Amino acid sequence: MAGSIFGKNFQVTTWGESHGKGIGVVVDGCPAGLPLDEGKIQKYLNRRKPGQTRYSTPRKENDEVEILSGVFEGRTTGTPISMIVYNTSQRSRDYSEIAQYFRPGHADYTFDQKYGFRDYRGGGRSSGRETIGRVAAGAIACAILEELGISVLAYTQAIGGIAIDRSKAKEENIMKSPLYMPDLEASGQAEILLESKMKEQDSAGGIIECIIRGVPAGVGEPVFEKLDANLSKAIMSIGAIKGVEIGDGFAVADTFGSQNNDAFAIAEDGSVCKKTNHAGGILGGISDGSDIVLRAAVKPTPSIARSQKTVNKDGQEIDVEIKGRHDPVIVPRAVVVVESMAAITVLDMLLSSMTSNMEAIKRFFQS
Amino acid sequence: MAGSIFGKNFQVTTWGESHGKGIGVVVDGCPAGLPLDEGKIQKYLNRRKPGQTRYSTPRKENDEVEILSGVFEGRTTGTPISMIVYNTSQRSRDYSEIAQYFRPGHADYTFDQKYGFRDYRGGGRSSGRETIGRVAAGAIACAILEELGISVLAYTQAIGGIAIDRSKAKEENIMKSPLYMPDLEASGQAEILLESKMKEQDSAGGIIECIIRGVPAGVGEPVFEKLDANLSKAIMSIGAIKGVEIGDGFAVADTFGSQNNDAFAIAEDGSVCKKTNHAGGILGGISDGSDIVLRAAVKPTPSIARSQKTVNKDGQEIDVEIKGRHDPVIVPRAVVVVESMAAITVLDMLLSSMTSNMEAIKRFFQS
Amino acid sequence: MAGSIFGKNFQVTTWGESHGKGIGVVVDGCPAGLPLDEGKIQKYLNRRKPGQTRYSTPRKENDEVEILSGVFEGRTTGTPISMIVYNTSQRSRDYSEIAQYFRPGHADYTFDQKYGFRDYRGGGRSSGRETIGRVAAGAIACAILEELGISVLAYTQAIGGIAIDRSKAKEENIMKSPLYMPDLEASGQAEILLESKMKEQDSAGGIIECIIRGVPAGVGEPVFEKLDANLSKAIMSIGAIKGVEIGDGFAVADTFGSQNNDAFAIAEDGSVCKKTNHAGGILGGISDGSDIVLRAAVKPTPSIARSQKTVNKDGQEIDVEIKGRHDPVIVPRAVVVVESMAAITVLDMLLSSMTSNMEAIKRFFQS
Amino acid sequence: MAGSIFGKNFQVTTWGESHGKGIGVVVDGCPAGLPLDEGKIQKYLNRRKPGQTRYSTPRKENDEVEILSGVFEGRTTGTPISMIVYNTSQRSRDYSEIAQYFRPGHADYTFDQKYGFRDYRGGGRSSGRETIGRVAAGAIACAILEELGISVLAYTQAIGGIAIDRSKAKEENIMKSPLYMPDLEASGQAEILLESKMKEQDSAGGIIECIIRGVPAGVGEPVFEKLDANLSKAIMSIGAIKGVEIGDGFAVADTFGSQNNDAFAIAEDGSVCKKTNHAGGILGGISDGSDIVLRAAVKPTPSIARSQKTVNKDGQEIDVEIKGRHDPVIVPRAVVVVESMAAITVLDMLLSSMTSNMEAIKRFFQS
Repeated sequence: MAGSIFGKNFQVTTWGESHGKGIGVVVDGCPAGLPLDEGKIQKYLNRRKPGQTRYSTPRKENDEVEILSGVFEGRTTGTPISMIVYNTSQRSRDYSEIAQYFRPGHADYTFDQKYGFRDYRGGGRSSGRETIGRVAAGAIACAILEELGISVLAYTQAIGGIAIDRSKAKEENIMKSPLYMPDLEASGQAEILLESKMKEQDSAGGIIECIIRGVPAGVGEPVFEKLDANLSKAIMSIGAIKGVEIGDGFAVADTFGSQNNDAFAIAEDGSVCKKTNHAGGILGGISDGSDIVLRAAVKPTPSIARSQKTVNKDGQEIDVEIKGRHDPVIVPRAVVVVESMAAITVLDMLLSSMTSNMEAIKRFFQS
Repeated sequence: MAGSIFGKNFQVTTWGESHGKGIGVVVDGCPAGLPLDEGKIQKYLNRRKPGQTRYSTPRKENDEVEILSGVFEGRTTGTPISMIVYNTSQRSRDYSEIAQYFRPGHADYTFDQKYGFRDYRGGGRSSGRETIGRVAAGAIACAILEELGISVLAYTQAIGGIAIDRSKAKEENIMKSPLYMPDLEASGQAEILLESKMKEQDSAGGIIECIIRGVPAGVGEPVFEKLDANLSKAIMSIGAIKGVEIGDGFAVADTFGSQNNDAFAIAEDGSVCKKTNHAGGILGGISDGSDIVLRAAVKPTPSIARSQKTVNKDGQEIDVEIKGRHDPVIVPRAVVVVESMAAITVLDMLLSSMTSNMEAIKRFFQS
Repeated sequence: MAGSIFGKNFQVTTWGESHGKGIGVVVDGCPAGLPLDEGKIQKYLNRRKPGQTRYSTPRKENDEVEILSGVFEGRTTGTPISMIVYNTSQRSRDYSEIAQYFRPGHADYTFDQKYGFRDYRGGGRSSGRETIGRVAAGAIACAILEELGISVLAYTQAIGGIAIDRSKAKEENIMKSPLYMPDLEASGQAEILLESKMKEQDSAGGIIECIIRGVPAGVGEPVFEKLDANLSKAIMSIGAIKGVEIGDGFAVADTFGSQNNDAFAIAEDGSVCKKTNHAGGILGGISDGSDIVLRAAVKPTPSIARSQKTVNKDGQEIDVEIKGRHDPVIVPRAVVVVESMAAITVLDMLLSSMTSNMEAIKRFFQS
Repeated sequence: MAGSIFGKNFQVTTWGESHGKGIGVVVDGCPAGLPLDEGKIQKYLNRRKPGQTRYSTPRKENDEVEILSGVFEGRTTGTPISMIVYNTSQRSRDYSEIAQYFRPGHADYTFDQKYGFRDYRGGGRSSGRETIGRVAAGAIACAILEELGISVLAYTQAIGGIAIDRSKAKEENIMKSPLYMPDLEASGQAEILLESKMKEQDSAGGIIECIIRGVPAGVGEPVFEKLDANLSKAIMSIGAIKGVEIGDGFAVADTFGSQNNDAFAIAEDGSVCKKTNHAGGILGGISDGSDIVLRAAVKPTPSIARSQKTVNKDGQEIDVEIKGRHDPVIVPRAVVVVESMAAITVLDMLLSSMTSNMEAIKRFFQS
């Protein structure tokens, strides 16, 4: 079955392998009339581009995006937007070694079992480069959401156990931290940890947090297409993510109803609001108008240079040391990927929510 | 948009409200030739039926399922299987009070915002009774998986912070514990906690764990229809779930690559295996042949009898005490729901995986 | 794979067999706030009910519909609407004969090949009774469309080669003709033909025409989800339909561009209109604001009493005479089914069209 | 909503406009292990390439396809196959004229109504060049079907009322006729007709017939995903198609059950066969093992040089003469498009049919 298409209204089809000709995406269902050019997309791609800091792979890729269709005279036409980023730094080194064994923590073994063989060059389709298509599509989703007053913001909440102190976290710090942490003190400590891990030829995991502001109440379709259900799928579909939580998440397991329930109240402007947001902005799978808050657990980069035990295709147990250009931590470059998948999902469900209500439909077609 | 349909091959459509005529489900895409009768379904429904222990609502519902179509002479025909459970205990009490305000932690407010009004009787569609359809469909999914050598097992891992001790956990204990905990000592402690919470008119949260054994390597479709992505959606779509994790889950954020990577090895029978299972049986979104392990965080029952602050439809802040028949903890009755959603998802993706490989397709049509 | 679900926004799931417990449908994605009761549905079901005229099977079925969910205090709630019609006239006669051979023109052989066996009682799932679910869902679609100023009208255009004279056709005649023909003279001639075919133990085919008025320009999604493409699928999915055409249909094959092109003009109210409607209201897969016109070819009832050659399950060639209660012509009872499928499709795509345009989306969320 | 994605297992996403940078397609869900290179695709594209005969537009396009992903070492990997054809002959002529009015028979008006504006250069997305993506994907579908013993063959059955004589039709003639007609005498007559139409600055319509051989019985999913229903959608989604029929199609309307039913018989090899094939190889929406036969009605090219009446964007009625490079008949170049869409559909449903039967599924996973 096909697995590279995401969404129902705003549909994202990604393609491409790490060392193929390029990576691309087709965005189908983008509303017509949105101002769009390569610059808007590039801004997002640059945030995941390699080589930005010493904590990301030195592989040199400019990751320059080209729009091939769906935009005319500076605006989207409503037809599919095809975008491509050519791979330019496919190293000529010999991949025959990696082809012969299964790297621990990678998809080598499972791809072989599923498909019979695999494009082993740099991980092929299971490479992190696959997320280029997600981010290019996410940039468009963010542009649409922005027009509707909705913002999506992701950042690093923790790396290797070093978490931000929320009292010290500031949004403006995020882009100042090479790790995209809003608390620069925690960022500094995490950098020290990463330096030590790099020396040990090891890698670290972490947590990404994402806040979506401005989503009106009423988005999400009970009972299976709940907003939190689709966000979970979207985020968990990113390589290296092993957990997703909404609002207080796993902490709710240890609390009691009297603590966890968010009391409703009347805001100064007379609207209904919540005094707390343990629910993370979603009740019964539908947005409640509060900030939507989610977190994703990112595993340590599986490619590490220190010796590991594995098996080869001949069925022998062997020791391997993974060479190549790898990030000591996936988290910082995944921040914009989480942001992108969250934006795509929220947009997709926002569009779905337009058909919930007969009166709203009537108004739409009468205007 | 529609939200009550789940799956691509094995498609589950649920319907019904807490106090409507009944709750039902249509299972479309069930393969023909599966032996099936009401007894097989009822066994699963009985596990979520109310009134089984003092920790569940005393609402009296037999929840007897009737198969209306799709089964002929004891076997599934390949056509849709429609199943219904009639509601019998719709209390005649006055719901006009609950209709006027928004219960904290419930979907009252979001349903009203989305649809303009709601069926307020017992939570309507957002009631836990909605899961009857999921469990009836899950029972069929489990029956199919069983024929293929795959088992799905869920149980309570923790309640209100009291977790099982894995060294003491035994599968045979699960059905002995009124809380479905495999460690009876932890179960006893959790019961004490619940008694105290019931006295305090409060409720508790917890964690459900699910293990799926026997899934062959190769199930899951990169990059968006990954097995873990779809499991996350399935589990998160259950009411009251606020977090999902696979394998080590959120713990990976604090570990390092050298710890988290599972080394491959050669098993005694010559097959490839893993020495550890931090990955929870899924690599690159594809099953690796190991046990698939997931956990879900369940929030405390939002309906509590103690006084809470909220607002009414007239825009006034009020204090409310939620009356009615409510569980002090959702976890035990949700165990079979998690099991059901996991089974539906794994089956659906197992069927999808049949078309991954040209050689396998050729063999299929030649045989 | 599942095949009993239709639509993307307004999703219709049907279930049930001719001689099972009943026939039903779940409508998911119906907007909230639509006034609805059984009476509205029943009116449509009565048009396909057997025993209305001497040209339909004398099987006695009241086909009374019951709404089981999704409607509260007289209005749809936005949650799935489950409807059921119980089968009451499952004759106790012995079906073991029909179970042993494949009726010509029926799905007996193909069901056996696909599923390994079949529910042979009255055709099981491939019976015309399956369309009850379509019509019940179609009634809801029509009710929604009516609120939006859109009407769907189907009627018999020809039976056994006897076609209506368009100069004599009047909408008010349709319900006066036992064959639902708007030209009563043609209807009378067709009745004479049917009498003669009944005597000959034979059956006749025909053509159904459907006109959809009031669809705004802009409905339909290039390039695969074109309005005409989805209408074709919807209509062709009805049993016994062997051809579908839009506007001039197959006649375009014999015409030339100068004849077939519809000239645009300015209407008296200043709006753009077309002087002719060869296109049948659809250009480039998108509605153009003119009437949408389609026709469907219906094959003669395959069940005929006269002797036919076929084979049995033992691989022997045999002669059979199909007994039972069968219509000499399918067309009249299929009229409301065509109307229903057209309504469901147009509604589904109308809802899809709401997300085509950025400005319209902005207006929607600002209002 | 998105409309440029087709299929459920073998999913085809097309993109591109007539005068944009290129036309492309992403094929997701192609099984791994299929031998594939550009040559196999190019062979199909060459059949729809312009400038092959005097009956097609003289626009010069080599339409050379490049595979960008999903193929490794000569075989498909199971991951998305991205293909691109760059536009090279975007004439620099001024399109500002065509931008100002709505061409009769084209999608100019409906695109404007739907999206608010349009890429008017050469028809933009509604251009016939859009079908390049369909044909590239169809070539892959055909390659897979071929491995399974299934062939798809389309040809011109009639042009401007001149139909082939079936007694004179030979498969080997198809590629000899510039109009792809299997009866060379009819082809000659049709050429004379076209010459005269070209002189009259007019265009002609016609009929394409398609025969699919080797499909096993059992493909197609009752009741909405019937094989004929999906074929109808697939074919009707091609621009300029106004009608689709299966087997005897519209002719069934004039026949009687005793004529139209296909008698089953026992073939020499002991298998079940049909003595005739009025049904066109599909019974109850499921393939019956006979040849699948369908026909599509193609309208005359709407772009004609002779003067036509239309309106401009200022709301004025005007006379226009469409300049540019246009085919006097669409039929011949659409033959391979029909073949492609038929192949994609049959393959998609063939893959779906793998999950119909419990025994077959068990065998699959045990082998």
